[in-house]
Amino acid sequence: MTSPAVTRNLADWIVGVRDDDVPAEVRREGVRTFVNWAGCAVGGASHETVDAALRAVDPFSGPRKASVLGRSERLDVLHAALLNGISSHVLDYDDTHLKTIIHPAGPVASALLAVAEARPMSGRAFLTSLVVGVEVECRIGNAVYPDHYDRGWHITGTAGVFGAAAAVGRAIGLDTTRMQWALGLAATQASGLREMFGTMTKSFHPGRAAQNGAMSAFLAEAGYDSSLQGIEAPRGFANVLSDKQDYGEILDGLGRSWEAALNSYKPFACGIVIHPTIDGCQQLREELGERVSEIAEVRLTTHPLVLELTGKRTPKTGLEGKFSVYHSASCALLTGDGSPTAFTDEMVNRPDIMDLRDRVQATADPACHEASVDIELVFRDGSTVAKHIERAIGSREKPLSDEQVSAKFTHQAELVVGADQTRRILDAAWGVEDLADAGEVARTAATGARAAAE
Amino acid sequence: MTSPAVTRNLADWIVGVRDDDVPAEVRREGVRTFVNWAGCAVGGASHETVDAALRAVDPFSGPRKASVLGRSERLDVLHAALLNGISSHVLDYDDTHLKTIIHPAGPVASALLAVAEARPMSGRAFLTSLVVGVEVECRIGNAVYPDHYDRGWHITGTAGVFGAAAAVGRAIGLDTTRMQWALGLAATQASGLREMFGTMTKSFHPGRAAQNGAMSAFLAEAGYDSSLQGIEAPRGFANVLSDKQDYGEILDGLGRSWEAALNSYKPFACGIVIHPTIDGCQQLREELGERVSEIAEVRLTTHPLVLELTGKRTPKTGLEGKFSVYHSASCALLTGDGSPTAFTDEMVNRPDIMDLRDRVQATADPACHEASVDIELVFRDGSTVAKHIERAIGSREKPLSDEQVSAKFTHQAELVVGADQTRRILDAAWGVEDLADAGEVARTAATGARAAAE
Repeated sequence: MTSPAVTRNLADWIVGVRDDDVPAEVRREGVRTFVNWAGCAVGGASHETVDAALRAVDPFSGPRKASVLGRSERLDVLHAALLNGISSHVLDYDDTHLKTIIHPAGPVASALLAVAEARPMSGRAFLTSLVVGVEVECRIGNAVYPDHYDRGWHITGTAGVFGAAAAVGRAIGLDTTRMQWALGLAATQASGLREMFGTMTKSFHPGRAAQNGAMSAFLAEAGYDSSLQGIEAPRGFANVLSDKQDYGEILDGLGRSWEAALNSYKPFACGIVIHPTIDGCQQLREELGERVSEIAEVRLTTHPLVLELTGKRTPKTGLEGKFSVYHSASCALLTGDGSPTAFTDEMVNRPDIMDLRDRVQATADPACHEASVDIELVFRDGSTVAKHIERAIGSREKPLSDEQVSAKFTHQAELVVGADQTRRILDAAWGVEDLADAGEVARTAATGARAAAE
Repeated sequence: MTSPAVTRNLADWIVGVRDDDVPAEVRREGVRTFVNWAGCAVGGASHETVDAALRAVDPFSGPRKASVLGRSERLDVLHAALLNGISSHVLDYDDTHLKTIIHPAGPVASALLAVAEARPMSGRAFLTSLVVGVEVECRIGNAVYPDHYDRGWHITGTAGVFGAAAAVGRAIGLDTTRMQWALGLAATQASGLREMFGTMTKSFHPGRAAQNGAMSAFLAEAGYDSSLQGIEAPRGFANVLSDKQDYGEILDGLGRSWEAALNSYKPFACGIVIHPTIDGCQQLREELGERVSEIAEVRLTTHPLVLELTGKRTPKTGLEGKFSVYHSASCALLTGDGSPTAFTDEMVNRPDIMDLRDRVQATADPACHEASVDIELVFRDGSTVAKHIERAIGSREKPLSDEQVSAKFTHQAELVVGADQTRRILDAAWGVEDLADAGEVARTAATGARAAAE
């Protein structure tokens, strides 16, 4: 079985990228990726999922050198990577590489920022490693998507571990061979099943990918060897976890065309496939005013994947609501909300929202693009209104502006750490490239004694 | 897709097994499993693989409540589970569930003993949890073997994580629902690629399975929820990681017929498929005496899997030698050795052994059983001698006696901790069921201040 030296060439590139090799517009998207991630990590920090994870890992924490964003607890670097990865994903509000549905920042930024607290690095070096990590996971994702995802793998976990290993490995100065080992150790830990969607374990995936990726880099640094061909070997990652292997997606144009520049940021706190529906329902609500109370029926036509991923008819919890296009449509029409507050247990069980939810019909149509939706409202008087959403806000075609990224950050972080600290974290995150010590962002985002003293 | 409630019924059984439910002969095999594991963990403790892993994880260790067997370092429970799992496998000398080629004790005992040091349990309770963990991983392995293994998964890692979660979950008293969560968290971390064979990362698999399984149990205990059908769901473990799913292997006769009673212990420190060859070559050496120096050619006929797994023609390191049926045959004929000392860098590069190795021919014959071999020696004078090994020593048909298990333990442990401590560990391990505190075995097996004081 012949394949190019994928792992070696990729490792070569990872360790060789200099700060100046990353074009300004790619660095800019990297900063937006980082700001969006930090907002999500702070915004998710008070979630019960994070509480439970902290209860479990706290007794095993090593030297508490790293911050849990939005909280007062400190943990060792590896456990902080896990926790920040969990909180950044728990509201399903994070970033998306739309070609693969990878949420790139969770595994990479969670690992890298925790490492930066223990092994200081400049903001500029930090950002280069962040972009490199995102690039690696998205390219590996491209190589195996969609077969890999269709088989049942949660690609944010399985591809994400490579991104974390690459980012941390580059940041701590691995040579090519050790980077190959780190990628091999990542390959053998690539895991995460889509069966876990709708439970706390979904958020575990980016967290564990961050932790395992960082661990892979530290093991390689310590001389713990591994396969040199972990990605492409006959029994390596791509062949074992996928029926599709397109290595050109990994190596072609490396350093010239950037997947990391294609990242997008969710305006809504749920699976990306519901976004066109929420966008359309919000617009309809604006246009209809009072008439929204006269809706008899809502008819959605979507790509089959939308119902496969988010077809929960009667969600009982906020978390399940994120996987219900029915709840999302009803909630957006009646309240206009698509933020984390739209996906609380209370909102999912609100009688008027449940009532309209039960009158939402959804039809799967393979001819409908995954990122589009057709919405038809039928009113009590029999009249109808229709809306087609070609691409939702937050997509690559209609990206959030910097101001919208900041507003999203503020909206969710304020609920957790208040307005003053939110502003400080936001300023630090946007200015990460100018920091002498990137770990400062994490410390600014921690609560407790230090934050109170400021 | 209908399937029985595999995860729920299995979890129900795990949490319900009482000490008395495990028949005496199964408990006895459990003790043998534990003794063999402890010997391997101590025997492997001075290996460079363990040194490298310790360098990597030591900076992240939490409260040092658990021992690394055969060493003076102490680590938190999760990292101790990782390290003991690595050392118990690094010499490829551990136990084997022959139906699946799972090495059962590595994931289960490494996790459970580390937990027992922090959360004391009686030796009797410890042994029940150990047997339950082994039973769970072997049954899950049976359900997906051989497709799962053929696809490229290192089944000791992928099935092992369930065994560790079951053993630890039972030991810490999870209820059925939380045990289902623990199995779900294990399912989503089931990983380990066969591509890693021949590198340090192979031993990482049982270690990480131990660590991840224990973590799964602790997360579930803390209320971190997961799928209730992690094993059998359409996108659960069995469907995503295998094309074969035979759930009867998991549920049928649970508690009545015991896979844990079928464990076997390697007499030789290498892949089980080479054992018939070494056994035969040792016997031939005994029979031939001086004539062994007149061998011109060695002709082996084996099952194709033997060459697939151990077909390294020119191994350069001791570790590679374990994957070379050529080296193993030559070394057994010229030195009689199949223990860890047969697989050192020095032995693999000894001129006379290399010379005969290059004159070993191996032919794959699908008609030959995996556990059999035909050996033909051709002498310089043209004469030949043939030997057929139907089943090797150490197989279920020719199991090691308790005395042979002890001798194997002593042979390898003495090289690491000396004769006195070896005797103390061996006594403690054989007597584990009578201990008020099973963790005593781990403390007895640690070196350094405490051991020196005794």
